[in-house]
Amino acid sequence: MNQTSFHWPLRLYIEDTDAGTIVYHANYLKFMERARTEWLRSLGFEQEKLRQQDTLFVVRSLQIDYKAPARLDDELIVSLSIERQRKVGLTLVQQVVHSATSQLLAQAQVEIACINQAGQVKAMPSSFLDAL
Amino acid sequence: MNQTSFHWPLRLYIEDTDAGTIVYHANYLKFMERARTEWLRSLGFEQEKLRQQDTLFVVRSLQIDYKAPARLDDELIVSLSIERQRKVGLTLVQQVVHSATSQLLAQAQVEIACINQAGQVKAMPSSFLDAL
Amino acid sequence: MNQTSFHWPLRLYIEDTDAGTIVYHANYLKFMERARTEWLRSLGFEQEKLRQQDTLFVVRSLQIDYKAPARLDDELIVSLSIERQRKVGLTLVQQVVHSATSQLLAQAQVEIACINQAGQVKAMPSSFLDAL
Amino acid sequence: MNQTSFHWPLRLYIEDTDAGTIVYHANYLKFMERARTEWLRSLGFEQEKLRQQDTLFVVRSLQIDYKAPARLDDELIVSLSIERQRKVGLTLVQQVVHSATSQLLAQAQVEIACINQAGQVKAMPSSFLDAL
Repeated sequence: MNQTSFHWPLRLYIEDTDAGTIVYHANYLKFMERARTEWLRSLGFEQEKLRQQDTLFVVRSLQIDYKAPARLDDELIVSLSIERQRKVGLTLVQQVVHSATSQLLAQAQVEIACINQAGQVKAMPSSFLDAL
Repeated sequence: MNQTSFHWPLRLYIEDTDAGTIVYHANYLKFMERARTEWLRSLGFEQEKLRQQDTLFVVRSLQIDYKAPARLDDELIVSLSIERQRKVGLTLVQQVVHSATSQLLAQAQVEIACINQAGQVKAMPSSFLDAL
Repeated sequence: MNQTSFHWPLRLYIEDTDAGTIVYHANYLKFMERARTEWLRSLGFEQEKLRQQDTLFVVRSLQIDYKAPARLDDELIVSLSIERQRKVGLTLVQQVVHSATSQLLAQAQVEIACINQAGQVKAMPSSFLDAL
Repeated sequence: MNQTSFHWPLRLYIEDTDAGTIVYHANYLKFMERARTEWLRSLGFEQEKLRQQDTLFVVRSLQIDYKAPARLDDELIVSLSIERQRKVGLTLVQQVVHSATSQLLAQAQVEIACINQAGQVKAMPSSFLDAL
């Protein structure tokens, strides 16, 4: 996984757009979380099951650059790759590209922390580290 | 309350709109829930406290008519009145009107049920009935 | 199409849920619109292209019954069938079922009107009627 | 304005929360935009009117740190201050604090660009610079 990256396609619906006739800027964070969720699922870790093991992955901080707008009916691809792995979290790089043209629409660096339900930082599960 | 009605103002932001440059139709359900929440609060019942007493008010069914569109920067008023009161729920009529012109934008009939956290129907709390 | 029905699968993400740990009730309207959009696309009618022909399909009214809650990570199937066809619109029945169990979660009757960008009712395009 | 800062209160509703029973992380971007919109309005600049003058303020990039969670029924205050002013945009610092406790929940640095409807960077209107 460290060398390669995960990709997740999605379609834009009218719910994703705003009166500027483009995708509302906060919605890119939703798209990036969908890709993280599907990436976890592809590794065998559904978030609801992780929660039952008192393990949550949360966004600690996020830096996003908006490069170009996306529009209704566009198909996008959200990618994810691990930039840095720590004992208690990950730094991910995520890109949103236009499926048809490969144009880069948005890019983010996302700090993910592993916490318990009380909100305390904890080590990522060894089964998860093995899966990476 | 039965004779009169509750009113709650709100402002439209770009997050509420869609690429048709009008308010996205599902968002009227959010606006109506904001008004119900504020009405409960005005009666002394915050939803989080109700939950701690194993009492939830949920939407069982809803019929909504869209009359006219709302747009960015508009100020709306959402109203609420009780149409019918049962032991285990309420039928509410809710209207969304344009604040400046009083034009009716949407009207709904909302069936609210009182349930416990297991999802079973229960009688509405007597303290709530007293407050009505 | 009139006899049969269209089905569209979707996955639930954390963005779809609320503090009751179930899917927020207004989001079912989004899911139903995704299915309508994909149904139109399957017939060869993208909404953006329809708009360029001064043709919009909008929700005029909607009646929805909530039967059972959906939760994070669930996979749902949204269906659509035509109940009634008029010159200037359609009455659709839409259901949301749980993919794994086929349990019915929500059912709606949706009145769709065909309008122009000025908001006036107009006849549905003959090419669309042919495609039905 | 440069020395002081603008504050905007808001209430959290169930629409803002997720299955973690906290506010969904992407929604802080909505709250920050509400504050920016109200700040512009307080200076006499509604976004819809700016659009008619071919002037849009858009988010170019954003860096956000999540410090502590917010929950249903909480009242928040979103603040905004100008960190840097350029000919074609602004760097804002925005904070979200818990109204009752003044606890800092999230902080962001937001790069705002002034563009025309064709998406080209343009100088901010002189009337706007005068109002600052």
